[in-house]
Amino acid sequence: MANADEQTVDPRVADSFAQQPLMALIGARIVEAHDGRATIELPRNQTLTQQHGYTHAAVLAAIGDSACGYAAMTLAPQGRGVLTVEYKISLLAPGDGELFVAQAEVLRAGRRLSFAQATIHAEQDDARTLIATLSATIASIDESRHA
Amino acid sequence: MANADEQTVDPRVADSFAQQPLMALIGARIVEAHDGRATIELPRNQTLTQQHGYTHAAVLAAIGDSACGYAAMTLAPQGRGVLTVEYKISLLAPGDGELFVAQAEVLRAGRRLSFAQATIHAEQDDARTLIATLSATIASIDESRHA
Amino acid sequence: MANADEQTVDPRVADSFAQQPLMALIGARIVEAHDGRATIELPRNQTLTQQHGYTHAAVLAAIGDSACGYAAMTLAPQGRGVLTVEYKISLLAPGDGELFVAQAEVLRAGRRLSFAQATIHAEQDDARTLIATLSATIASIDESRHA
Amino acid sequence: MANADEQTVDPRVADSFAQQPLMALIGARIVEAHDGRATIELPRNQTLTQQHGYTHAAVLAAIGDSACGYAAMTLAPQGRGVLTVEYKISLLAPGDGELFVAQAEVLRAGRRLSFAQATIHAEQDDARTLIATLSATIASIDESRHA
Repeated sequence: MANADEQTVDPRVADSFAQQPLMALIGARIVEAHDGRATIELPRNQTLTQQHGYTHAAVLAAIGDSACGYAAMTLAPQGRGVLTVEYKISLLAPGDGELFVAQAEVLRAGRRLSFAQATIHAEQDDARTLIATLSATIASIDESRHA
Repeated sequence: MANADEQTVDPRVADSFAQQPLMALIGARIVEAHDGRATIELPRNQTLTQQHGYTHAAVLAAIGDSACGYAAMTLAPQGRGVLTVEYKISLLAPGDGELFVAQAEVLRAGRRLSFAQATIHAEQDDARTLIATLSATIASIDESRHA
Repeated sequence: MANADEQTVDPRVADSFAQQPLMALIGARIVEAHDGRATIELPRNQTLTQQHGYTHAAVLAAIGDSACGYAAMTLAPQGRGVLTVEYKISLLAPGDGELFVAQAEVLRAGRRLSFAQATIHAEQDDARTLIATLSATIASIDESRHA
Repeated sequence: MANADEQTVDPRVADSFAQQPLMALIGARIVEAHDGRATIELPRNQTLTQQHGYTHAAVLAAIGDSACGYAAMTLAPQGRGVLTVEYKISLLAPGDGELFVAQAEVLRAGRRLSFAQATIHAEQDDARTLIATLSATIASIDESRHA
């Protein structure tokens, strides 16, 4: 997905993403965010692994949760932000690959709460494996409180 | 908990923790692990924050999930390791504080599966706030597969 | 807990519970609800079992989820009701016993969202076994919409 | 889906379903189970409602969880059964409709653990609304232990 059109990233999402130090620390990039969908990619990095050499579940959760939040942000009214209330991640297979791709979609966008889910795939050579799924509840917040 | 007795960290847990690059990257330290319990601490670090300046939920999840896994490891037979199958984290309050403390306990240790839960508190001055809870399912694995 | 003082059930909770046909169908009774806590009991009933003769997980979830909601209701302002947004249940052991007891407590009560968790124990003769844990997110709603 | 071909229900699933008293009590029927997929339907029934007249979340969870388990059973080797380890249900909209349909699919079938997810729709007249999603972890068990 290296050729993803940057125009498809909602400007509010791009701004918010750029202000997240953790996303820079782990090397994540947002490649799509519009119409209730968002995609975040993360190249493998040895500093993000656990004791068996796989990418740490927390890092997969970081991109999965963020993708859910940004998918919800694309549907939020002006002046409203998003905050994750809770999420569950299921770890189907080890975090083994060269690139990790979290793709989220909003299942229901409410005035106060939204529900989103994400898949996380590992890509290696020509193979693409589903390694995790994540479901999140996201609250709508008054973004000006954090300005 | 700066005075925690290092003798209370199970040696297998200490070894495994030392081999997790992500724990070093985020600056987490394990301060207790024995008898189905584990505690991990993380000092605040600006690089681990999200767009509002709070410590990122994924970082809280990292220490909560790891604490659950290491709590389970303290009860595992020799030669057996642990692998998180899934977890859910509830984010009760923002990740706002100088120190984050994840304390986990095993609720049931089975031959193949264990269940653990963790609380995550933020400490600031004399205040201590419950900011997250996490529940995890953990599988027993043959550690030699990863030797 | 047959001697539980009925005075300890918040009147709003007692009213709401009495209006839940499902609670009557399964034979559940609320024995405590005040100050952010609630307890629901369910005697074993063969009609509520699954294919192995154990009480069905859905029935354990029913009393665990309801206990969480009613614990939250005890802290809600007048005119406000509660609605479960999501829950996760971990099934630690089979639903094997004569009496099932769900005990819930609110971890954080917010204006719009509350977080609660419950344990579910099976009682048999003098033994008491933790068989499930449940964590729930609960929304505050305008009860008059449902009047 | 009243015309669903009964031939599409795996015989082991049909046997197991018929042995679940709770499924009979609530009036659920299995209409599809093969190749890692399962569908369970439940007509609206006033005895299954909560205090606002909607079908109780626990009932939706019952059919969603069972659909996940039976989807996994269709992929299990002979002599192996299934047991739900944990599930999370997100309640997107009220349980309001004439028919509730839970459709599950296995995301990953392992030797010891499988992961499945389900959607639950409410049907009314010509409308079909997604009201809940459920994700489950399912263990493989030796069915002969329960014979």
